[in-house]
Amino acid sequence: MSKTFVADLRAGQPVRSSFLAQKIQIRQKRTGEEYLFLVLADRTGQVPAVMWQSLPPEIRALADGDIVKVQGVFGTYQGQPQLTIARLRKASAEEIDERDYLPCSAKDPVESLRGLAATAGTITTPPLRQLVQIILDDPALRPQMLEAPAATSNHHAALGGFLEHTASVVGLCDGFARHYPALNRDLLLTTAILHDIGKLRELRWDRVFDYTDAGRLIGHITIGISMIEGFLRSIPGFPDSLALQVIHCVLCHHGELAWGSPKEPMTVEALALHAADNLDAKMGIFLAFAQHAADPQHPGWTHFHKSLGRYLFVCPPALPPRS
Amino acid sequence: MSKTFVADLRAGQPVRSSFLAQKIQIRQKRTGEEYLFLVLADRTGQVPAVMWQSLPPEIRALADGDIVKVQGVFGTYQGQPQLTIARLRKASAEEIDERDYLPCSAKDPVESLRGLAATAGTITTPPLRQLVQIILDDPALRPQMLEAPAATSNHHAALGGFLEHTASVVGLCDGFARHYPALNRDLLLTTAILHDIGKLRELRWDRVFDYTDAGRLIGHITIGISMIEGFLRSIPGFPDSLALQVIHCVLCHHGELAWGSPKEPMTVEALALHAADNLDAKMGIFLAFAQHAADPQHPGWTHFHKSLGRYLFVCPPALPPRS
Amino acid sequence: MSKTFVADLRAGQPVRSSFLAQKIQIRQKRTGEEYLFLVLADRTGQVPAVMWQSLPPEIRALADGDIVKVQGVFGTYQGQPQLTIARLRKASAEEIDERDYLPCSAKDPVESLRGLAATAGTITTPPLRQLVQIILDDPALRPQMLEAPAATSNHHAALGGFLEHTASVVGLCDGFARHYPALNRDLLLTTAILHDIGKLRELRWDRVFDYTDAGRLIGHITIGISMIEGFLRSIPGFPDSLALQVIHCVLCHHGELAWGSPKEPMTVEALALHAADNLDAKMGIFLAFAQHAADPQHPGWTHFHKSLGRYLFVCPPALPPRS
Amino acid sequence: MSKTFVADLRAGQPVRSSFLAQKIQIRQKRTGEEYLFLVLADRTGQVPAVMWQSLPPEIRALADGDIVKVQGVFGTYQGQPQLTIARLRKASAEEIDERDYLPCSAKDPVESLRGLAATAGTITTPPLRQLVQIILDDPALRPQMLEAPAATSNHHAALGGFLEHTASVVGLCDGFARHYPALNRDLLLTTAILHDIGKLRELRWDRVFDYTDAGRLIGHITIGISMIEGFLRSIPGFPDSLALQVIHCVLCHHGELAWGSPKEPMTVEALALHAADNLDAKMGIFLAFAQHAADPQHPGWTHFHKSLGRYLFVCPPALPPRS
Amino acid sequence: MSKTFVADLRAGQPVRSSFLAQKIQIRQKRTGEEYLFLVLADRTGQVPAVMWQSLPPEIRALADGDIVKVQGVFGTYQGQPQLTIARLRKASAEEIDERDYLPCSAKDPVESLRGLAATAGTITTPPLRQLVQIILDDPALRPQMLEAPAATSNHHAALGGFLEHTASVVGLCDGFARHYPALNRDLLLTTAILHDIGKLRELRWDRVFDYTDAGRLIGHITIGISMIEGFLRSIPGFPDSLALQVIHCVLCHHGELAWGSPKEPMTVEALALHAADNLDAKMGIFLAFAQHAADPQHPGWTHFHKSLGRYLFVCPPALPPRS
Amino acid sequence: MSKTFVADLRAGQPVRSSFLAQKIQIRQKRTGEEYLFLVLADRTGQVPAVMWQSLPPEIRALADGDIVKVQGVFGTYQGQPQLTIARLRKASAEEIDERDYLPCSAKDPVESLRGLAATAGTITTPPLRQLVQIILDDPALRPQMLEAPAATSNHHAALGGFLEHTASVVGLCDGFARHYPALNRDLLLTTAILHDIGKLRELRWDRVFDYTDAGRLIGHITIGISMIEGFLRSIPGFPDSLALQVIHCVLCHHGELAWGSPKEPMTVEALALHAADNLDAKMGIFLAFAQHAADPQHPGWTHFHKSLGRYLFVCPPALPPRS
Repeated sequence: MSKTFVADLRAGQPVRSSFLAQKIQIRQKRTGEEYLFLVLADRTGQVPAVMWQSLPPEIRALADGDIVKVQGVFGTYQGQPQLTIARLRKASAEEIDERDYLPCSAKDPVESLRGLAATAGTITTPPLRQLVQIILDDPALRPQMLEAPAATSNHHAALGGFLEHTASVVGLCDGFARHYPALNRDLLLTTAILHDIGKLRELRWDRVFDYTDAGRLIGHITIGISMIEGFLRSIPGFPDSLALQVIHCVLCHHGELAWGSPKEPMTVEALALHAADNLDAKMGIFLAFAQHAADPQHPGWTHFHKSLGRYLFVCPPALPPRS
Repeated sequence: MSKTFVADLRAGQPVRSSFLAQKIQIRQKRTGEEYLFLVLADRTGQVPAVMWQSLPPEIRALADGDIVKVQGVFGTYQGQPQLTIARLRKASAEEIDERDYLPCSAKDPVESLRGLAATAGTITTPPLRQLVQIILDDPALRPQMLEAPAATSNHHAALGGFLEHTASVVGLCDGFARHYPALNRDLLLTTAILHDIGKLRELRWDRVFDYTDAGRLIGHITIGISMIEGFLRSIPGFPDSLALQVIHCVLCHHGELAWGSPKEPMTVEALALHAADNLDAKMGIFLAFAQHAADPQHPGWTHFHKSLGRYLFVCPPALPPRS
Repeated sequence: MSKTFVADLRAGQPVRSSFLAQKIQIRQKRTGEEYLFLVLADRTGQVPAVMWQSLPPEIRALADGDIVKVQGVFGTYQGQPQLTIARLRKASAEEIDERDYLPCSAKDPVESLRGLAATAGTITTPPLRQLVQIILDDPALRPQMLEAPAATSNHHAALGGFLEHTASVVGLCDGFARHYPALNRDLLLTTAILHDIGKLRELRWDRVFDYTDAGRLIGHITIGISMIEGFLRSIPGFPDSLALQVIHCVLCHHGELAWGSPKEPMTVEALALHAADNLDAKMGIFLAFAQHAADPQHPGWTHFHKSLGRYLFVCPPALPPRS
Repeated sequence: MSKTFVADLRAGQPVRSSFLAQKIQIRQKRTGEEYLFLVLADRTGQVPAVMWQSLPPEIRALADGDIVKVQGVFGTYQGQPQLTIARLRKASAEEIDERDYLPCSAKDPVESLRGLAATAGTITTPPLRQLVQIILDDPALRPQMLEAPAATSNHHAALGGFLEHTASVVGLCDGFARHYPALNRDLLLTTAILHDIGKLRELRWDRVFDYTDAGRLIGHITIGISMIEGFLRSIPGFPDSLALQVIHCVLCHHGELAWGSPKEPMTVEALALHAADNLDAKMGIFLAFAQHAADPQHPGWTHFHKSLGRYLFVCPPALPPRS
Repeated sequence: MSKTFVADLRAGQPVRSSFLAQKIQIRQKRTGEEYLFLVLADRTGQVPAVMWQSLPPEIRALADGDIVKVQGVFGTYQGQPQLTIARLRKASAEEIDERDYLPCSAKDPVESLRGLAATAGTITTPPLRQLVQIILDDPALRPQMLEAPAATSNHHAALGGFLEHTASVVGLCDGFARHYPALNRDLLLTTAILHDIGKLRELRWDRVFDYTDAGRLIGHITIGISMIEGFLRSIPGFPDSLALQVIHCVLCHHGELAWGSPKEPMTVEALALHAADNLDAKMGIFLAFAQHAADPQHPGWTHFHKSLGRYLFVCPPALPPRS
Repeated sequence: MSKTFVADLRAGQPVRSSFLAQKIQIRQKRTGEEYLFLVLADRTGQVPAVMWQSLPPEIRALADGDIVKVQGVFGTYQGQPQLTIARLRKASAEEIDERDYLPCSAKDPVESLRGLAATAGTITTPPLRQLVQIILDDPALRPQMLEAPAATSNHHAALGGFLEHTASVVGLCDGFARHYPALNRDLLLTTAILHDIGKLRELRWDRVFDYTDAGRLIGHITIGISMIEGFLRSIPGFPDSLALQVIHCVLCHHGELAWGSPKEPMTVEALALHAADNLDAKMGIFLAFAQHAADPQHPGWTHFHKSLGRYLFVCPPALPPRS
C-alpha cells in the first residue's frame, strides 16, 4: 500500500494509507456508546479523525506515536476537514518508512554536513580547526546531527532542521567575515558551527518534537558548553584564552539576558554570531508563518502572529524588468 | 605654516599650528586677573589649553568653531595634557584646509558613492532603480551625501560616515539577498541605499557634529520618508504597493518601537534591512570604543561602556597557522 | 419591509428583516447534509444564525459584507442567542439604508465638522488658520471625515467616530489653552484638529471596520504627517519653524515610543495634545466597556478588561442633593 | 538694611545683605590656614561664597539654615559667580522677613485656598461637600496648606506650591466634568481637592524643602488616605460605597503601579483625576526647566533633561495675526 | 444521607449526595426543549452536570451558591467527566455541614492562631506586643481570622489559608531573626503577624472565594494599614517612630512597586518580611500546581504554568541512604 | 614599626606606617614642578595622599598594589582628609602582614569551612554527600575557598567573604528544609554549599578585588557548573537525574533571566536556594551601606543608594522591655 499524504487528501475521497496517531481518545456519545477520536499526521500535515463504530479491542492498546493503517473517507465536519475511519489497525515496521511521518528539512542533511566539514577545512587556526573536526567526526553525535530539528515549533521544526539552520548561520558568518576584516574568521566560523550543538541533547525527535528533561532544566546553551568543554579536554594544549572566547561566543549567541544568554556579547565575534543566529531564526519564523498562516480575507497578509505581535506581509515578487 | 595635529603633540614640545577653538571661556584668577581657557581640536583629537597673560583685545570676539593659530608649549597639568599658549590669533581662510579640523571616514566618500551608483545599476525593477538613481544624482543632495557623518558620536561620527555606513549596510544586504532567495533583492537594496537619507537633514557638520532642530523634533526616519515621498511624486506611475513597501522598510529600520521605529518589520526585507543596519551600527560602536577606550589596567579590555552596559574585549588576532 | 434591529430581537419572536452577513460558512452535519452558518449584524449588534435546510443555490455566491433579507425565529442555542433562518436572499440596494448596518456615533458628524470649522475661525495665526481651513474644506477628505470611525474596536469604533473623537480632543485642548497661558493656543488647536487625519487612510469602513494595507504597514501617524506636508506645500510662505512644530505635535501625540510615537513630546503643546488624546481614548474605552461588558455576578462591575489588566467599576450617580 | 536678592547681584558690585546659609564648611588652605566656604541663598537663587580671613569665633556655631548678614564683593571664580565675604554675622529675627529666603509660588495661597472653598461650595452631594469643607476649615491643616510646596524639586517646589498645584488640578477637573457628562463632578472635584493632602506630612519646608521620615517611609498617597479616613470618621453616616470611591481616586492618582499607586484607575473619575494631576505636574516640570535650563548654544532649547530623557523646545510665541 | 465527595466519584457509579451549585444555566436543545446545566462542587473538587428532563419548577429559583441534593449517575461526556442528574432539590440547612463545600487548609486554624498568640507572648517590646495581642484578641476579627483564605486561587485558597500562610511567614521570620542578629525580632514578628490582616476585608469566602468591592478598589495592603492604624490609636503612647516602621513593613511586603507595594523596603525588617512572604507564596503556588496539574505525558512534570511562564518539575524524593 | 590603620588616623597627627599604594600619579604643578599623588589603603579604609617635594627616583618604579612605608602628617584639604607625605619607600616583605591590607570578613574562614564540612556530614543521600565532600576536600580549591571574597563591592567584598556568604546561605536553607517538609534537604544543602563555587575563578583578590577574564566573559554561574561537572565525572554511578537537579539549582540561583540565570527555578529546591541567596546578598548590601554611608544631615538614614534606588533607614534597636 503506497502512502497517501495528508497534504494530498481531497474531500469525498476514499483513503487507504498509514499515518502517525496522536491525541488518541476514546469518547462517549450521549447514548453512552463509545467512539474513537484521534489526530492523524505525517510529514505533510495533520487531520482530525473519528471512528464511529465497531471499535476493535486492540484499539485500547494504541499509544500516541504509533503508526496506524486506516481505511475511510475524507470529508468535513463543522467546516473543518475530518477523516471518518471505517477500519484501523497498527502498521508493522516493514510497511512503513519512518521518514514519512515527521516533517523534513528541504535541505539534504548529508549535504549540509559535508558543507560544514568543508568550511572546517578552511579554518587556519589549528586548535580551532581541530576542535570543529573532532566534533563533526564524532561517531556518537554524527547520526544525531543528521536527524535533529532546530526547534519544536516556529522555525526549522523539521528533521534535518538543526543542520539546515547551522549551515545557514555559518554561511551568514562567512559573509560577515569577508565584510568586516576586524572579525577573526576562524573564531567566528568555529562558533557558528558549534553554537547550537547543545540542541542535540535539549530536544528529542522520536515521532514527536519535544524537550528532554535536560532541555527544560538546563537548556541548550549550558548543555552545549558542557559538550564543547568535553571536546576541549581531549585536545592537548588548546590555548586557554582561545577556549574562553569560544565559550563566550556560544554563551552569548542569544544576545540578551532576557533571551536566555547569561552574558551579553563583549567581542565582535560574539556580536556577529548573535546577529547571524537571530536573523536566520527570524527569517525561518517569517517564512514558515507566511506559508502556513495566510489570511484569505487579507490578500498578501498572514493572520496575527501572537509572539511577534504583528501581522506579516508577504512581499509579492518584484515587477519584471523592462524588456 | 604646516599643520601639527593633536595626535602628534609631544610633552615639552613647542607648538606652532592652527586648531579649531571650542568651549572658549575667559576666566578669572583669585587675584582677579583674567586668563583664557579653551579646547583646541582637529580631526585627530582635542586638547585643553590656557593662556595666562596678555590677552589681546580681539580675543573677546572669538566664537566657538573659529580656527585659531597658536604658539605655545605642550605639557601636562594635574596629570592631564594641556597646551600653554603664548600667542594666539584667528586664522585666515587661506591659511587652512577645512578638512583638517573634523574627523574623516577612512573610506573615500567619492568611491563609496560610486559604489552605490554601481549597485543601483544592478536593480532590475525599473521604478526602484529609477528612484535610487534620481536620489543619488540629485544635485542638492550629492554634496551633502559626500560630507555627512552617520551620527554625532558613538559610530561613524566622521565626515563621510554617512556614506561609509550606507555602503556597508548595502554590502551586507547584498549578501543577505544572495543567501536568502525569498528576499526581493531589488527592494532590499533600494531601501538599504535610502534608509538613512533623513540624516542629511537630521544632522549638521559645520565644524561640529550636532542635531538640527528638525533632527531633534522629527528625527531622521520621518524626515527620510518625507524626502523619499518627494522623489516618489516625481516618478510617474510608481506603483502604490511598491511605494508602501519601500516606506515600510525605511520606517522599520530601527526594528523596535523602543528604538524609534513607529512600526515593527512585517516583511522579510524590512527584517533583513534592520538586521544589517543594527549589525553595522553595533560593529561601529564596538570598533570605535575598542580603539579609543582601551583600559591599560586590563589588557585586552576597554573601559566600561555605559550605554551598552558592559566591558568590551578585544580579541587578539588568531594564532598563526601551523607551518 | 421596515428594519428590525438586532438590539430589539426578543426570544421566540419571528423575524423578517435585513442584516449584514458576516463569517458565512457552509457546514456539514454528521449525516453529511449541509447547513448554513453565518453572523447577522447591524449597527446595534450581531447575532449568530443557522439555516438548517433547503439551501438555495445562490447561497454559494454570498460574500461577507452582503446585506441579506431573512425570515426566521429568534431563540437560544446552548444558552446563547441564535436566529434560525427559514428563508434568505440577498437584499437589493433600494431596499436598504446603508447607515443601518454599521454602528454610528451618537454625535452628528455634520455638526461636529461645523464645530471644528468654527474653532478654526478662532485661530489667530494666519498660516495655521489657513492650514486647518484648507484641510477641513478639502473636497476629497470632507466625505471621508464625515464617515470615518476613530478605531476598529475599543473606542469610537463607529461611523462618525473620527469626528466625535477629534471634536472632543479639540474641546479638551481649548480648555487647556484657557487654563495654561504658556500654551500657544493656535498651535495646540491646529494640531488637535489635525492629529488623527492619517486615520482617514489607515482605516476602511466599507461594511467592516478594518485597517488598510497602508494602515498596517505605515500607520496613521506617519500617513498623517505625509498628508499634512502635502497641504503645507500648497501654502506659500508657511514658516519652516512653525511647520516643524506642527509636525512634532502630530508625531508625538501617542506620547511614548512604546505606543508608536517615534519621538516624545518636547514642547508644551505636544505634551498637552498627548494628554487630551490619551484621556479621550481612555474615557472612550472605559465607557464602551462599561456599557457592553457589565458583569451581572458583580453589580457595578464589568468583566475583566484584558488589555487594561483590570476590572472597571461603574460609579453610581451622585446621591441627590439635600432638599 | 534692605534685602539685596541673589538674582540682582552684579559682577564687581559690593554686597551688604542677608542670606540663608547652606552647606557651611570650614576648609584648609595648603598653607594650613582655614577659610570659610558656604552657599548663600534666598528665594531668587543661590551663590557660592568664601571668606578668606579673620574668621570670627562664632562662625563655628553657624548651622545650615541660619540666616546671615554679610558684607563683601560679588565676582567670579573659575568662570563661576562667587561672593567674597569680608564680614559675616548671624542675623537677628527682627532683621529679616522669613519669606525672602525660600522660593514662593507666583500664586497667592490665600487666594487659591479661597478658590478651593468656593469650588467646595458647588459640590451638591452633601457628604462630599461636608468632607471637603471640614478639611479646608481644619485649623491645624490650614496654615500648613497655605505654606507647603508641592515637591522638593522639579515642579511647584516653592512655598505655596501645594495650593498652586491643587488649584490647577481642580480647575482641570472642573473642565473635564463639563466636557464629559459621564463624570460624577462631585466625586471628581472632591478628590481633586484632597488628592495631595498627604504632602502636608510627607514634606517639610523649614528653610529647606525635604522629605519627612514619614514621607520617605510611607509616602503621601498612603499618608493622605489615613488623613482622609480620619475626617471620614468624623462625619456620621458617610456612605461606605462613596468613601470607597473617594479613597480609590486618591490611591490611584499616580495612575500606574510603577509610579507608586498600588492600584490603577478603575473608575472614570480616578482616570480623569490622574490625567489632570499628570498633566499639571508635567507642565510644571516643562515650564520650570525651560526657565532655568535654557541652553545658550541651542537657541530655543533647554539642556538635556535627564529624567525625562530629552531636550525641551521652547515654542516661540505665535506669529502676530495679520493686520 | 452521608456526603459523597467529588474526589471519590467513580465512572458508572450511582450518586446520591449534596453539592454546592455553581454556574447554573437553563439551556435549550435544538428541539427547543430545555435542560439544566450546572457545576457541582465541594471541598474536594468540581464536576459538570446535566439534567435532561422533567425540570421541576423550583429549579428557576436556584441561585449560584445554593447547596443541592442530587440523584444521578456519574459518567463521561466527550472524554470529560459528567454527572447526569435524575432528581434534584435544594438541601435544607440541617442536612449539610457547611465546611464540606469549600476547600479547607490542612492546618487547624485554632491551632495556628494559638501559635501566633504564643509568638506574640515572646515579643519583648511592650507596645509591639500590645498591638499584636489587641488584634489577635479582637472579638470581631477573631472569627474572620479563623475562616479566611489567603487568596482566591493559586496558593492557600482554602478556608483557614489566611492563618496557615501567616503562621508560616511568622515561622520563617523567626528563623531569620535567629540567623541575623541585626534584625529587630520584635518588629519583624509583629509585622509578620499583621502583614496580611487587610485580607480579612479584601476577600469574601461565603461559598465562593472572591474579592470584595474594597478588595478590588483599595487592596489588602492599604486596607490593612487602615486597620492597624485604628488599633494603634487605641494604644496610648505608642511611639510614633515605631508606628512608622510597622506601617513601612506592612506597606512594603510585596517588595516592589510593580507588585503593588507603593514603597520598596528601606529597612532590614521590611526586606526580611518581604522575603518570607514571597517565598511562602511561591512555595504555595509550586506545591498546589504540582499537586493539581501533573502532566501524564511528561512524568515528573506539570503542565505549563502561565503566570510563572514555565513548567514545574517535581523532585522525586531523595535516594535512600546507604545501609 | 607597628601598623597604624587608616580608620585610626586623627587630624594633625604625625603618621609613620605602611599602606597599600593605589592610583599612583606623578602630577605637575603650574610651576612645572612635579609632585606625587596616590591613595593609601589598608583593610580599614583609604585616604588620598600627596608628596610635594624631593620625589626620590625610585618613585617612578612604584606600581599600584605595592605596599609602601610613609612618614607624614594627616590633615584635610578642601574639606577632605589628606595625608601629606614627607618620606616614602617601598616596604619589604618581612615588614608587613599581607592580611592588613585588604578588608577581611568578620567570620573566621577556617571555622566557616569546618561548619560546611559538618553540614555535609548530615547529607544522607550518598552521591550528594560524596560530591560535597570531594569538593570541600579538594586540595587546590581549599586555599582559594579560605581566601576568596564573595564580590568585588557591595556585599561580602572582603577576604573570607565567599565562605561567610556560603555559610549564611547554607544556614538559611537548613532552616527552610526544617520549615517545608516538601523540600529535599539533601539536594538543597548540597546546592547551597556549591552555588557560588564558580566565584573562585570569576574573581581575583591579589591586593585588589576584581574580575578575571573568565569572570567577565563567562561568569560564575557557568564556570561553577563546569567545575561541578568535573567533580561529577569523578564519582562513578552518580545518578543522571540527580545531576540534572543539582545543575538546575546552581544555574537558577539568581532567580531571573534578567539577573543572569539562563533558566528560572522549576523545582522547589531551586526556588528556595534562590530565596536564600537573594536575601543574604541584600542583607549584606543593606548592612554594609548602613555602616559606610550614614547621612549626618538625616539621622537614622543613609545617603541615596543608586542601584537600589532608595534611601535606607537604620532601625534603632527595640525599646527596652518593661521592667
